[in-house]
Amino acid sequence: MSIGNGARARGDGRLPAQLRPISVELDVQKWAAASVIFREGDTHVLCAATIEDRIPPHLRGKGTGWVTAEYSMLPGATSERSQRESTRGKIGGRTHEIQRLIGRSLRGVVDTAVLGERTVTLDCDVLQADGGTRCASITGSWIALSLALRRIGLERAVTAQLAAVSVGVVAGAPVLDLDYAEDSHAEVDFNVVATSSGAYVEVQGTAEGKPFTRARMDELLTLADGGIAQLFAVQRDALGGPRR
Amino acid sequence: MSIGNGARARGDGRLPAQLRPISVELDVQKWAAASVIFREGDTHVLCAATIEDRIPPHLRGKGTGWVTAEYSMLPGATSERSQRESTRGKIGGRTHEIQRLIGRSLRGVVDTAVLGERTVTLDCDVLQADGGTRCASITGSWIALSLALRRIGLERAVTAQLAAVSVGVVAGAPVLDLDYAEDSHAEVDFNVVATSSGAYVEVQGTAEGKPFTRARMDELLTLADGGIAQLFAVQRDALGGPRR
Amino acid sequence: MSIGNGARARGDGRLPAQLRPISVELDVQKWAAASVIFREGDTHVLCAATIEDRIPPHLRGKGTGWVTAEYSMLPGATSERSQRESTRGKIGGRTHEIQRLIGRSLRGVVDTAVLGERTVTLDCDVLQADGGTRCASITGSWIALSLALRRIGLERAVTAQLAAVSVGVVAGAPVLDLDYAEDSHAEVDFNVVATSSGAYVEVQGTAEGKPFTRARMDELLTLADGGIAQLFAVQRDALGGPRR
Amino acid sequence: MSIGNGARARGDGRLPAQLRPISVELDVQKWAAASVIFREGDTHVLCAATIEDRIPPHLRGKGTGWVTAEYSMLPGATSERSQRESTRGKIGGRTHEIQRLIGRSLRGVVDTAVLGERTVTLDCDVLQADGGTRCASITGSWIALSLALRRIGLERAVTAQLAAVSVGVVAGAPVLDLDYAEDSHAEVDFNVVATSSGAYVEVQGTAEGKPFTRARMDELLTLADGGIAQLFAVQRDALGGPRR
Amino acid sequence: MSIGNGARARGDGRLPAQLRPISVELDVQKWAAASVIFREGDTHVLCAATIEDRIPPHLRGKGTGWVTAEYSMLPGATSERSQRESTRGKIGGRTHEIQRLIGRSLRGVVDTAVLGERTVTLDCDVLQADGGTRCASITGSWIALSLALRRIGLERAVTAQLAAVSVGVVAGAPVLDLDYAEDSHAEVDFNVVATSSGAYVEVQGTAEGKPFTRARMDELLTLADGGIAQLFAVQRDALGGPRR
Amino acid sequence: MSIGNGARARGDGRLPAQLRPISVELDVQKWAAASVIFREGDTHVLCAATIEDRIPPHLRGKGTGWVTAEYSMLPGATSERSQRESTRGKIGGRTHEIQRLIGRSLRGVVDTAVLGERTVTLDCDVLQADGGTRCASITGSWIALSLALRRIGLERAVTAQLAAVSVGVVAGAPVLDLDYAEDSHAEVDFNVVATSSGAYVEVQGTAEGKPFTRARMDELLTLADGGIAQLFAVQRDALGGPRR
Repeated sequence: MSIGNGARARGDGRLPAQLRPISVELDVQKWAAASVIFREGDTHVLCAATIEDRIPPHLRGKGTGWVTAEYSMLPGATSERSQRESTRGKIGGRTHEIQRLIGRSLRGVVDTAVLGERTVTLDCDVLQADGGTRCASITGSWIALSLALRRIGLERAVTAQLAAVSVGVVAGAPVLDLDYAEDSHAEVDFNVVATSSGAYVEVQGTAEGKPFTRARMDELLTLADGGIAQLFAVQRDALGGPRR
Repeated sequence: MSIGNGARARGDGRLPAQLRPISVELDVQKWAAASVIFREGDTHVLCAATIEDRIPPHLRGKGTGWVTAEYSMLPGATSERSQRESTRGKIGGRTHEIQRLIGRSLRGVVDTAVLGERTVTLDCDVLQADGGTRCASITGSWIALSLALRRIGLERAVTAQLAAVSVGVVAGAPVLDLDYAEDSHAEVDFNVVATSSGAYVEVQGTAEGKPFTRARMDELLTLADGGIAQLFAVQRDALGGPRR
Repeated sequence: MSIGNGARARGDGRLPAQLRPISVELDVQKWAAASVIFREGDTHVLCAATIEDRIPPHLRGKGTGWVTAEYSMLPGATSERSQRESTRGKIGGRTHEIQRLIGRSLRGVVDTAVLGERTVTLDCDVLQADGGTRCASITGSWIALSLALRRIGLERAVTAQLAAVSVGVVAGAPVLDLDYAEDSHAEVDFNVVATSSGAYVEVQGTAEGKPFTRARMDELLTLADGGIAQLFAVQRDALGGPRR
Repeated sequence: MSIGNGARARGDGRLPAQLRPISVELDVQKWAAASVIFREGDTHVLCAATIEDRIPPHLRGKGTGWVTAEYSMLPGATSERSQRESTRGKIGGRTHEIQRLIGRSLRGVVDTAVLGERTVTLDCDVLQADGGTRCASITGSWIALSLALRRIGLERAVTAQLAAVSVGVVAGAPVLDLDYAEDSHAEVDFNVVATSSGAYVEVQGTAEGKPFTRARMDELLTLADGGIAQLFAVQRDALGGPRR
Repeated sequence: MSIGNGARARGDGRLPAQLRPISVELDVQKWAAASVIFREGDTHVLCAATIEDRIPPHLRGKGTGWVTAEYSMLPGATSERSQRESTRGKIGGRTHEIQRLIGRSLRGVVDTAVLGERTVTLDCDVLQADGGTRCASITGSWIALSLALRRIGLERAVTAQLAAVSVGVVAGAPVLDLDYAEDSHAEVDFNVVATSSGAYVEVQGTAEGKPFTRARMDELLTLADGGIAQLFAVQRDALGGPRR
Repeated sequence: MSIGNGARARGDGRLPAQLRPISVELDVQKWAAASVIFREGDTHVLCAATIEDRIPPHLRGKGTGWVTAEYSMLPGATSERSQRESTRGKIGGRTHEIQRLIGRSLRGVVDTAVLGERTVTLDCDVLQADGGTRCASITGSWIALSLALRRIGLERAVTAQLAAVSVGVVAGAPVLDLDYAEDSHAEVDFNVVATSSGAYVEVQGTAEGKPFTRARMDELLTLADGGIAQLFAVQRDALGGPRR
């Protein structure tokens, strides 16, 4: 795949292999064990870690811990107000799918034996949405998780960095980190979650409209690898900065 | 009530009649009609206004609009993580009570005939809680509501400013704008919602443990009046600043 | 406020400061610890007390008890049949608000240490509604509560009498104990809960349409004080009568 | 079956074929189309009829009406307080079964073509329970239904009287109109719903512990027939008395 | 009742007293304690028994067991797709009524003291529906229950055979084992549950449109007795066949 | 990857690249538009297609149709009885995730413009579960969908065959079509959904315990491609056989 000089610019002027601007704001909530507002372009997610001395029933007596996540979108985060799931009285399928993905991904880089009989909950609340909220939730949650565990002396329970990015095919061309407008017109849409050890913990690819070949998938994964390497650098920067 | 030189300082060093530091951050959500993070000490509430061209069934055909509110607390807002109401599958009594209060208060300063057949929804999401979240939601929502209506040329539907503050009796003495630690030990607790026309739209006083006299109530309302006057000044400042 | 000779009679012929006719019927349910039908004009509420040897989890081991309330309206109580909340699958905001008020008010006159590790539940079922159901529920519940505790030798856990009344401004004039027709057109609406020690446990005032001044509020509280004194006399009569 | 001289008296002194004392109190709710408190011994049910000019979707455009029922037990009606189904968030199986039975039975004596496009809802709220609440609900509801239809000039939509009674085998002997203590120890339990035309609309017999023969069933039905004839007389008395 | 030479054939050619063709397929689910597909004409029900070493709270410490049932209809079982009750978020009244009937009937032929502190759950899932699903569920569940208990050496906890059949009056004539088309037009509809000891455990008769006499009921029960005797033979055949 | 002579046999004796035995039983439900029991080893799924002349609100007036799916597991399908989601009152996250996957996959091979304003619902009810139920649901649903559309003359709305298979890494080695025992110990787990045009519509890979490399992913996809080719042959066989 060529993402060189001849590549057509995207709606917001980015090159195909370019991430949106990223920023990280630490400790936005005074009482959470750690909290982060992770901004990726116009997608802003508040990721908060809570550590509790309890574990789910099925893990009791095994000496291991648990990492789980919840995901929600504030009603004003989208261009049309979305109804609260608390008001509807139930959590929708999309929310279930996303929060299961976040939790599963994070557990892929946590040694639950080192964690001990503790549950870490990552609350991902989308303040503003412009595509890629599940990936931003994962990348931001890893920062909150690491910071929270460092503060109780359990940083070694985190075995690697973890970040996620979307890649897709828009107007026939592969692009990195789709915003909402691109996502709405994507022919193929991948969410890739990878660790700093150079391997994947989740790859979810979906054809929206037309199926994709193995070659196309390879192109997209290469594009994702590049984005994830940059996200790892952002994470290291964020955690290396001043502590509270 | 003396709040003069001899008054004992409070836990955070404030005088009895002193508000916590207030700040207002406008337009924190790109797609909401207007949004505000209203900070009153360590209580931070995101208030977002949405305007929709629909009205509840019982108002159809009357040519008038509606103003309503929803209130929610992010799980990481409190020192112990609170369970999401979407996960519990229903909204609790406290949430119902608060969002009904916010909506009713705001309707007290909106001329729904001028509003026309529109619904304005104020979403109040508590990012960080340290007491007084319902009052901060009302004061912040009024800013978001005014800004949203100004943007569609309907500022005149807002008939007055509206602000709210808590007052209470802590360790035997009346204090303004209680934080969580004070609220937990208050003997009497009032929420006062008033307009810039010098009158009240809601007064809710509760004895926590021991009943209160009419004289005590008068003292508390005087204290509240002073706080509310300051909040009106903050609101005017916020709306007079630069627009997006 | 003059409620003297010149005062205009109300829809049902009452003077502004006149309560509706009150009656109390004791022990209408054979198995409840105590039960009362409290009638205030055409508002009829069945208040039943149950005493159980259990307490909510957060109170365990503290040696203190709990008082709580539930409120419901029979479908046929109103002029248009109201849907059952059991059929709708959830309790509405208004019901939540009312039952929290009843419980909180009653706890204001109960010494939970004397009560010991017991829960008293007051079930308030509105048989017929004509305004003021929450106030009638409080006044009636206090009778059922006192009677139930007397029967197990714990009358001393009740520290004072408790009664509630509504007051409001209708057609520009303050009136006591609003019926439904008056309540629907009230400009200001207060619910006042007071003890026989001469102090308030709850004051909830709401402007319906136009804000109210401190002076107006004083007038209304004076009117309420008069009504509550009469309700205390009714309560004493009811409890001094023949026992089962 | 001999219920003659040698028959052993029951717990409350009744003979095997004797009903509990019955009383009917009309128009206990001011706004309901008609309402009745039907008392059968210590079982007291408030039956209220509401008539609405709407019909369920599946009946629209057929020119016929509908009769339905809802059943609920007040928490204080039983010796141990029962939890409200509104609080539990759903209606239990027993309630569903009972309210379906009441509605189906009443529809058996209503000519829905005469009724026209109206829905009559019978709300049966058990104020006090001592066995036989579903039968008392049916017998009482028929009175409320007839009265409500008479008031709008549609009495002819009611094609016959309808009453219900329980019969069962207790300590080896058939008895009529079981109270709660008898019901708890019954070996066989029947609910019989019949019309004044001398036929049944519902017969529900259940063996509690041991199966029953055809001969036993015949004995029980004969016993039920006798009770139902008396209930018809009570109904006629109630409706022949003074009207509001 | 004459079901002799002159009898008119039914829609599917059956005689009035003729059952639909019955077949039993054992052990259709590898992991269930026992499972059966019971087919009665075009009504096909999968009945699966599960045995668990736990009992409901109210039975603890009494040394006795419990038998319960759940009933559900697959969406594709009927000519119009029926919505899943899991999707609707609650179980309907008809389902509650049916599963309570199945459980109660089975408990009529189980000695729970012999069963010991175990719960047997019978899951009845209707694969294809053509009337009589509740009766087929009972007859099939008895086979699954017996087989499951035999496999753990507790066959003696089953005190008798149990089967159920519907009878009704269609076009003025009594018929056995109604299919859906007949059931839709039946004037009277009975479900009869009986044991091999020659007695009934449940008799539920409903007039659909016009009441029924005692004589009619006798005719119908006689018809049911004949059908049930045949069902007992089918059950014995099924259990006498080859075991897994 | 070598799956040749040296390969170690699996628990059930299969070679690494070998599918479990597959069978297809058509038209198991008389009233569904089409229905299939799809068996893959001990995993048995009943897939039923229903066609309705309605579409979801957001598609109205566009002339296009919709394909959706629901998924459920019978309680007796697993070695420990699973609680019904209808009884729990809500659908769990896993079910949501699976039924969204099935629907999305099928829509990948349906031309909704050809379908017209119709909704096809695929109900996947797992009769017996031994791993791979979501893949079996997709492969079986495609057969039911094709058959149902052929019967109404719309077979051309199906643009390609669609099948799904799981692949994973067990004990360090890649294997095709995991059963439950293998799935429980898999280090990596992929679900691959592909069309007969040689491309993918969904690829979902999850690391269970340790991340996977791009090379490993390639191996697994090659394995999946082989399995899917065989499943396409089974589908063609099933649809080429005798029609009802």
